[in-house]
Amino acid sequence: MTLPIAARAVNTRERILRTCLRLFNDQGAATVSTNRLATELDISPGNLYYHFKTKEQIVEQLVRRFEQRLAPIQKSSPAIEAVDDFWLALHFTFEAIHDYRFVFRDADYLARTFPSARKRLQSIIAVSIATTRAQCSTLAEAGILRVNAEELQTLAFHIVFTATCWSVFAKLAADDVGDSADTGRAAYQVLTLLTPYLNEESRHYILYLRGKYRG
Amino acid sequence: MTLPIAARAVNTRERILRTCLRLFNDQGAATVSTNRLATELDISPGNLYYHFKTKEQIVEQLVRRFEQRLAPIQKSSPAIEAVDDFWLALHFTFEAIHDYRFVFRDADYLARTFPSARKRLQSIIAVSIATTRAQCSTLAEAGILRVNAEELQTLAFHIVFTATCWSVFAKLAADDVGDSADTGRAAYQVLTLLTPYLNEESRHYILYLRGKYRG
Repeated sequence: MTLPIAARAVNTRERILRTCLRLFNDQGAATVSTNRLATELDISPGNLYYHFKTKEQIVEQLVRRFEQRLAPIQKSSPAIEAVDDFWLALHFTFEAIHDYRFVFRDADYLARTFPSARKRLQSIIAVSIATTRAQCSTLAEAGILRVNAEELQTLAFHIVFTATCWSVFAKLAADDVGDSADTGRAAYQVLTLLTPYLNEESRHYILYLRGKYRG
Repeated sequence: MTLPIAARAVNTRERILRTCLRLFNDQGAATVSTNRLATELDISPGNLYYHFKTKEQIVEQLVRRFEQRLAPIQKSSPAIEAVDDFWLALHFTFEAIHDYRFVFRDADYLARTFPSARKRLQSIIAVSIATTRAQCSTLAEAGILRVNAEELQTLAFHIVFTATCWSVFAKLAADDVGDSADTGRAAYQVLTLLTPYLNEESRHYILYLRGKYRG
């Protein structure tokens, strides 16, 4: 069966995005050119150009997909009523970060080279900080987290920073922290930031998790 | 006056390293090739090759210099007796990180591409964690920091992570945190990690610093 031209075009476009994501993740966004991408896809540079005029357009699509992947996790934030809800949301977040790991890892290159990617990255970070602040605020209202307004702000900021940059550091300090793809371990590292502010019951839960990730 | 050949060679070597550091910092280590470097220096690729056979050799020299710049700051760790000693050491550390900012910012590329750089980076991080642990331990013995052995470990690890990755994140989230080159602001961000564990007197000092960086 031969696909109609429109369907084939959609598939090629999808194949470009998926292959590019894999190459960016594996080799780094700075080192993968559109020519390299065309070779990997076994299509002509002209065919690639038909779908995406510039590398920036591909980057923007991929960063947008990452953003869309994060959106439902962030929308679930009002439902966070206990530390393990928070932990689960972190887990999903780290899975998304891992699947699109070039985004945060190569953030400096992307922001420096592509103005559209810079805007989108800044928006992702701003939304993440606002979401995390709301989540921590819910935990504070439930008496689980004991923080004043300023600590809440600093904490939310530091949690997003840790989520954003953790995988790069984990990979470098590999001997100390194990597999950087271990999203549970990453989520746990973020949770430890909350520990000194938690009520006793929740702190016990963190100790239980600690045992789990050491075992 | 004409310099003797040996002196000129030393100067060319030094000029290569300094120019390369500037290009790496400004444009990213992944995007600067040895040809680009030779053009910038206005020397032939052959002349560059005479001094450094590969890009890896230049990278290794620069990472080694960064390591040497950190060494005296780390050696001063037994003299840390109060929170402001710690803050000063952080300040110097962030200055060094800023001057060699490509090292941590492009760490993923460097580690992936150059085995010698990977080893050196891992060693820098391991030494930094050990030093920070020793510093926190001294503060704990002086009654300034109230932590158990496990908290000490987690804290030291997280401080080094923050120092390593802060500048990249600060640049992205620029609207929220101001100039990423502001080493005082960066040192303060690390200090906030200590806050919940500090005794009352030192916590007051942190509040004083907080006012300073908000003003």
